[in-house]
Amino acid sequence: MFNDFKLNQGRPVYIQLKEYLKRMITNGHLLENQKLPSTRELSVSLAISRNTVLTAYADLEQEGLIYAVKGKGNFVKSVETSKTPSIEVNWQEKMSEQALLAENLDLMKHGVRRRNQMISFNSIAPDEKLFDVENFKRAFLNRMAIEGDIVLNYGYAKGYKPLIEYLLHYMEVKGVDIKEKDILITNGFTEGLDIILSSLNKKNGRIICENPTHHSALKLFRMHGYEIDGIDMEDDGLDISMLQSLLTKNKYDFAYLIPSYHNPTGIVTSSEKRKKMMELFSAYQVPIVEDGFNEELRYSGAHLAPLAAFAGSGNNVIYTSSFSKILFPGLRVGWVLADKDLIYYLESMKRARTIHTSTLDQAVLYQYLHDGYFEKYIKKARSVYKKKYELALTSSKRYIPMKRITGDGGLHLFIELDDKIDARELLNKCSQKGVVFSLGNDFYTDDNGKHTLRLGFSRLKEDEISSGIMRIGQTIKEHYGGER
Amino acid sequence: MFNDFKLNQGRPVYIQLKEYLKRMITNGHLLENQKLPSTRELSVSLAISRNTVLTAYADLEQEGLIYAVKGKGNFVKSVETSKTPSIEVNWQEKMSEQALLAENLDLMKHGVRRRNQMISFNSIAPDEKLFDVENFKRAFLNRMAIEGDIVLNYGYAKGYKPLIEYLLHYMEVKGVDIKEKDILITNGFTEGLDIILSSLNKKNGRIICENPTHHSALKLFRMHGYEIDGIDMEDDGLDISMLQSLLTKNKYDFAYLIPSYHNPTGIVTSSEKRKKMMELFSAYQVPIVEDGFNEELRYSGAHLAPLAAFAGSGNNVIYTSSFSKILFPGLRVGWVLADKDLIYYLESMKRARTIHTSTLDQAVLYQYLHDGYFEKYIKKARSVYKKKYELALTSSKRYIPMKRITGDGGLHLFIELDDKIDARELLNKCSQKGVVFSLGNDFYTDDNGKHTLRLGFSRLKEDEISSGIMRIGQTIKEHYGGER
Repeated sequence: MFNDFKLNQGRPVYIQLKEYLKRMITNGHLLENQKLPSTRELSVSLAISRNTVLTAYADLEQEGLIYAVKGKGNFVKSVETSKTPSIEVNWQEKMSEQALLAENLDLMKHGVRRRNQMISFNSIAPDEKLFDVENFKRAFLNRMAIEGDIVLNYGYAKGYKPLIEYLLHYMEVKGVDIKEKDILITNGFTEGLDIILSSLNKKNGRIICENPTHHSALKLFRMHGYEIDGIDMEDDGLDISMLQSLLTKNKYDFAYLIPSYHNPTGIVTSSEKRKKMMELFSAYQVPIVEDGFNEELRYSGAHLAPLAAFAGSGNNVIYTSSFSKILFPGLRVGWVLADKDLIYYLESMKRARTIHTSTLDQAVLYQYLHDGYFEKYIKKARSVYKKKYELALTSSKRYIPMKRITGDGGLHLFIELDDKIDARELLNKCSQKGVVFSLGNDFYTDDNGKHTLRLGFSRLKEDEISSGIMRIGQTIKEHYGGER
Repeated sequence: MFNDFKLNQGRPVYIQLKEYLKRMITNGHLLENQKLPSTRELSVSLAISRNTVLTAYADLEQEGLIYAVKGKGNFVKSVETSKTPSIEVNWQEKMSEQALLAENLDLMKHGVRRRNQMISFNSIAPDEKLFDVENFKRAFLNRMAIEGDIVLNYGYAKGYKPLIEYLLHYMEVKGVDIKEKDILITNGFTEGLDIILSSLNKKNGRIICENPTHHSALKLFRMHGYEIDGIDMEDDGLDISMLQSLLTKNKYDFAYLIPSYHNPTGIVTSSEKRKKMMELFSAYQVPIVEDGFNEELRYSGAHLAPLAAFAGSGNNVIYTSSFSKILFPGLRVGWVLADKDLIYYLESMKRARTIHTSTLDQAVLYQYLHDGYFEKYIKKARSVYKKKYELALTSSKRYIPMKRITGDGGLHLFIELDDKIDARELLNKCSQKGVVFSLGNDFYTDDNGKHTLRLGFSRLKEDEISSGIMRIGQTIKEHYGGER
């Protein structure tokens, strides 16, 4: 006993002693009625205070694990430790179609492993060096001072009220008509989309979206059993004539669209195209799920209203977004703005599935936004990312032989190589040279895009961006020739 | 313009001015090429600094909403505000079976509304007056100092590693064999259960559980389309002979069990019964989902190992729990401990649906647990709740004519009234007298329990507990006679 007792720093010693003894007892290593060392003995042999031992013993007694006999010491109580016949379940055989698909489409499990020292263009997460930790702490302390007990107790399924009010105003400022609309706060964009997918009746079983598109969304569409029709992307947004012909041909339950900094192509849909798209979807009565992904990251240029604003007083657009992707992804807070009749049902789904989103996350985010820290942060972020963007664009054009590059800003670029180059093969070669990127093909609704790749540059240093892109270019030239 | 411009305290004025003007522009209230007031003019008329106006105008220009002409001033840019023909979707018609069921079973939407000044026995949430806000802040600041940037960035779908390690050790101390086991962190218990339900193949389409049982779990079982067989509860746990006969009759995908402080009956299953149950479920090869609900709240008595400990090296128990219900429900953190092959799939489901649980919540909770604050808190909570429990028990026995009362501790009691009393009718009468409680019937797998009720006392003051229970008793005597 006690030869494997090691103390962890920073954790009260009496708890560690108690847990050690509790484990010995529940595992059957200490027997019923076995005498424990006296408190004096133990305090000396472990070089801890006697009070610590006394507290640990008192807690063990309170938990029904030991008993004291006056003048005799402490003894182990009878504790049920007998195990029932152990049975082995083959869990893999018990998995649902959806779980097997989730595993199968899990890029984190089946992608090329990133090793240390590698230059990875995989991520489009924010650069943690930009994080405004001090103001975040300030926002936390401010909010806790205002209503710490409310922040820590159960909240509402729909979300934290001050944040909902803030976001309604925020959307109104973007030009969205918020009359008869409401907001549901979710654990990030992804949960919002999943709740929408679970709540909508699969009448036609078919979705229309840009091709390529966000792979997490594609994964969810597939897990929910939808057929997916993709529309090719032109430099100013989707191909309108292809959209029109698909709308004539098929019936869709809804359209999923990312009008700004489209993932993965980085394309920003023009105002003219937004209008045309909206007219077409209205004409064919197809509701829209708009992904507001990173639209806050616009470096410059004309103002662009979200599709939800184009819809005016109509209720056919479900707008989903989150600040996570540019602010703090560790906080899982997203939102769905939609017709209040729809939110009414989504709220019940949310309550059934996760009760509500962390009030702590919502409350601190609210305070951070309210106090104006977000405005300051986004200015800094824009200027840092803009530099990286320009460098990535220049380097790509200079070093990578390609057919087409897209990306009007944001945190990533999308490159179409010559058709004959297999990007997966290229990735393996580049990975040996210490550079990895995302396969464009993973974002396609069909089997296309095998010669495409996405370069996320947000978390890389400037020299990593240029040398990484240079290495990709060199690898292409080495293996495929091609100074096209 | 500006007559409806009102300043909010605590939010930077330049942001408020910018948002005001942006909304005027995106809504079409300011017209293309319209001249804005000069910065000097505006600063005087709004009594704000000229710098504030300059910053707001600069931001608007950067966002492409206005343009400056040297020597002439600032003008509104052309902004697309034209709305497309508005279409009206009937969202209610588009709802899935699951969403309709979620709404239909949503007790928050269809329960008796609690008014102010009412004594509500509905809640079994912790008493916010007990919250240890100061140590929570300390834990936050400690963790942020250690790795603030990691806390704020993307984490792992499986969960925050230090918390996973902590919980594995925590479960081991309870006597659970953690070899070949793993943990998934979820947004509270509810998400854990929902992910399990989505991941398991519905082979037999049938679940077995205690009757009554936790209504959030029942709701999810129904939403996932399961048939549910309930087993009657005796004072020391479920009716073993009924269990045996059901196991002989039907095949089950899994059993859902709450062995400690069972919700809603408050019954703690005895060690003997735990063993017998485990033997039976093993014999019939039925895996178990164990709900560790509030097992930390044991006021006294013998140690009781979770079913997961009885399983020994077997892998047939999926243990789910959370500290939310006694610590901070606003933090949505729960966990699933199970065979690592199963966790492997649950992890992919979690990633597909919500990416991961808030790292902030997990990290602060970890630090709070690690630093020993939880141990201190739970001692205080136990002593406060124990008093309330004893008072509620004594008062109920004294004032309420009843057939049976159960509840071995925890935060609630369960009462069976005379069969002829309809608890819903009683609730309406009590509500008029300013007292509400939870209908037992909502917790039943079948149509039973119409004469039962649950009294949650955790958030009530002592005088509210006794006077509330007295009023329920009086109402029964008034309307149903009955000094049984």
